Amino acid sequence: MTIEIPALIEEQFASGTLVAAIAQDAQTHEVLMLAWMDREALTQTIATGMGTYWSRSRQSIWVKGETSGNTQEVVDISFDCDGDAILLKVHQSGGACHTGDRSCFHNSIALQS
Amino acid sequence: MTIEIPALIEEQFASGTLVAAIAQDAQTHEVLMLAWMDREALTQTIATGMGTYWSRSRQSIWVKGETSGNTQEVVDISFDCDGDAILLKVHQSGGACHTGDRSCFHNSIALQS
Repeated sequence: MTIEIPALIEEQFASGTLVAAIAQDAQTHEVLMLAWMDREALTQTIATGMGTYWSRSRQSIWVKGETSGNTQEVVDISFDCDGDAILLKVHQSGGACHTGDRSCFHNSIALQS
Repeated sequence: MTIEIPALIEEQFASGTLVAAIAQDAQTHEVLMLAWMDREALTQTIATGMGTYWSRSRQSIWVKGETSGNTQEVVDISFDCDGDAILLKVHQSGGACHTGDRSCFHNSIALQS
């Protein structure tokens, strides 16, 4: 099976840019995490329906939950108007964050206005 | 007034990395857009409560809605566990996308699994 990547996103990969991938809970709409995708990570996500990313620190592909068991079943994929960001709607098993929290966005910044 | 940026995010800026900023509708929880922030953009956002970003294509700061009128009033800011992504909950005037769409994520990719 050939996976076709939209041209706008291919342009990013061709210029060596990773795309930002947002994982959002499909039921609660909570934003769970942001990670990065190269061409292979996106292709695998489309093909398998499991959230798969590129680790900038480890410089390798990782399937979310591969070691923790906290997998992401992807139910919807969309991308933005300039092709540098992807939105995944997911069914998240357990916490999305390596800390055990449901979401990685658990630190606040106070507004000063 | 001095705006303090969390150390985890300062590390990103110190290494020359922009942080990814997700804007989410505070009421509907729809993910509206993803843009980029340098230190100045984040500082301005915290100080003014208006979504302010760094344009990678124009290499300059921009206040969302400055020209279109489709401003973003920021009501909550959080950041993720590795400090490379920020989540803004916003009251969005009009469409967040330059196309006029409410969200920039209006293009679908079909899953193959």
